[in-house]
Amino acid sequence: MESFENSRRRVANVLGAQPEEIVFTSGGTESINFAIRGYLEANSRKGKHIVSTQTEHKATLSILEYLSQCGYEVTYIGVDDLGVPKWEELENAIRPDTALLTFTHVNNETGTILPIRTLVEIKNRKNRSAVIHLDCVQSLGKIPFSPQKDGIDLASMSGHKIHAVKGVGAIYIKKGIRLQPLIIGGGQQSGYRSGTESIFLAEAFALALEKSVENCEAAYQKVTRIFDLVSAIIISCGGVILSPPDGSKYILNAAMPMFEAETLLHALEEHDIFISTVSACASKNKKVSHVLTAMGIDKTLSRSAVRISFSRFSQTDDIEKISQAFEQVIERYAL
Amino acid sequence: MESFENSRRRVANVLGAQPEEIVFTSGGTESINFAIRGYLEANSRKGKHIVSTQTEHKATLSILEYLSQCGYEVTYIGVDDLGVPKWEELENAIRPDTALLTFTHVNNETGTILPIRTLVEIKNRKNRSAVIHLDCVQSLGKIPFSPQKDGIDLASMSGHKIHAVKGVGAIYIKKGIRLQPLIIGGGQQSGYRSGTESIFLAEAFALALEKSVENCEAAYQKVTRIFDLVSAIIISCGGVILSPPDGSKYILNAAMPMFEAETLLHALEEHDIFISTVSACASKNKKVSHVLTAMGIDKTLSRSAVRISFSRFSQTDDIEKISQAFEQVIERYAL
Repeated sequence: MESFENSRRRVANVLGAQPEEIVFTSGGTESINFAIRGYLEANSRKGKHIVSTQTEHKATLSILEYLSQCGYEVTYIGVDDLGVPKWEELENAIRPDTALLTFTHVNNETGTILPIRTLVEIKNRKNRSAVIHLDCVQSLGKIPFSPQKDGIDLASMSGHKIHAVKGVGAIYIKKGIRLQPLIIGGGQQSGYRSGTESIFLAEAFALALEKSVENCEAAYQKVTRIFDLVSAIIISCGGVILSPPDGSKYILNAAMPMFEAETLLHALEEHDIFISTVSACASKNKKVSHVLTAMGIDKTLSRSAVRISFSRFSQTDDIEKISQAFEQVIERYAL
Repeated sequence: MESFENSRRRVANVLGAQPEEIVFTSGGTESINFAIRGYLEANSRKGKHIVSTQTEHKATLSILEYLSQCGYEVTYIGVDDLGVPKWEELENAIRPDTALLTFTHVNNETGTILPIRTLVEIKNRKNRSAVIHLDCVQSLGKIPFSPQKDGIDLASMSGHKIHAVKGVGAIYIKKGIRLQPLIIGGGQQSGYRSGTESIFLAEAFALALEKSVENCEAAYQKVTRIFDLVSAIIISCGGVILSPPDGSKYILNAAMPMFEAETLLHALEEHDIFISTVSACASKNKKVSHVLTAMGIDKTLSRSAVRISFSRFSQTDDIEKISQAFEQVIERYAL
């Protein structure tokens, strides 16, 4: 499987990792399931305590809920109004029997960037043997990241968020860390993930990652400009920006208090502008965002909150069109 | 996700199933993991006893081994010299606390076809509440199969064995049967399998399945002819056919006693003929096939056994070339 191994090397190369530290999966959700459950199941002597936040992705929260029914104890630390973990709470949460900390690098609803260095520093001070799993689905290829340099033990990645086809992801597993596989069988990928290897999907992931990183800085500058312009439009229309000022510019969370989020979404759809209410993965549940709630955002405002995602393919040329669309939508639909 | 749901309907339609009984996965191995573990975890009150055979695919055997370390008891019934389960052993194996029977429709090494009707009849007589999981990876699109008509509760399928891209599979879950998901998160696919749905992969699977079934009978006739011709070549070269006479004609297991399997494989490679020693999934382990061992095939003969796979794209035109290749290989390499 020369070309499969080559894809693994290419991904490792981008991340500053060893090829044997990369395992391909079917996507971000599988990676997160594998990382969290796999680590805890293979390292039961490390303890049954997990630390996380209230603002994780639904995948992580579901797994933590499942694990808490299986005898694990989870401490969810709070976040401030920008979505950053409350470090004193973290200090107090980490115990000698804390096996795993699982955090998100870039929050998928607000773009809040986790200060990894602070997290790692506190963790090492309180419990050096606990490991850190980072959900990198939203940061991969967009925000510089190197698990080894950053002191991360496990990292979950998704292909389609960097423009690969849907159905592929990867996980970084620091050398020496043991995981119980989620999918067992023929022993492919050193036994970490059985199932016939898909050269096509692995190459798609590797190529997408290389292309993302290649254009990383230029793309970030362009996306920042678009983020700022769209923010200005929203503010001029009476909206409120909920994303933190120092967050990832790929995700703009904003509320237009004169609309229910759902109304704005459908109104903009008519103008071929596609945004989402909360995390697309759970958007069928019409609840108020758990992320905004944790950040202490007023419930009424939260109900108006929408998420606007940008990519390196977003065009500044579209700004005029977006501006006009917002004006027309307000004229027609505002309460 | 209209087109994703449409793919689900298309697959259900081919199998004579309901769309909600089909869940897409990343492949056959995930499907088998999900079916077996998912059923047992969600139905712990049904008992902790499993019945299977010694000739299952490595994926199933690995899971059963894992489960037997987790407090489950597995009874492996034997097979006869054609690979067919010994029915008296099955009769004796099924107990009131048998939760699951897991069998393979078409054996991946020998082509042995499971007499499903006999299996279902005995199971229903001995324990009506036990469910049957069928590994359909090798039969799908090749041998007529309808889980509902055939009395099967769970069926695992792989896309790439029917010429879809690698990285997609499916599982049939009979209405009313509960499974604990293997991958949890955003609750996609009715919560059975979280992770962003890949329209592309689901459509690839649906299309591949339709195309396979469309050409099923004509392909089977052609493949039967090729199987018979290749068998004749092998016999005329002093080889022995190990596949049963009434097996699937897509898989020909044969031994040429004058070669180690590995030697024959590499010698034929030089003629652009690609065969395998045992299951490709485990071919790195140079053991004698556990399937042939279970069938009571002599160890020396087993060491020479190779598996030749055909597909609906195999050509009778290639027969002359295959015949010449065998002759040359024997002349050059035979012991």
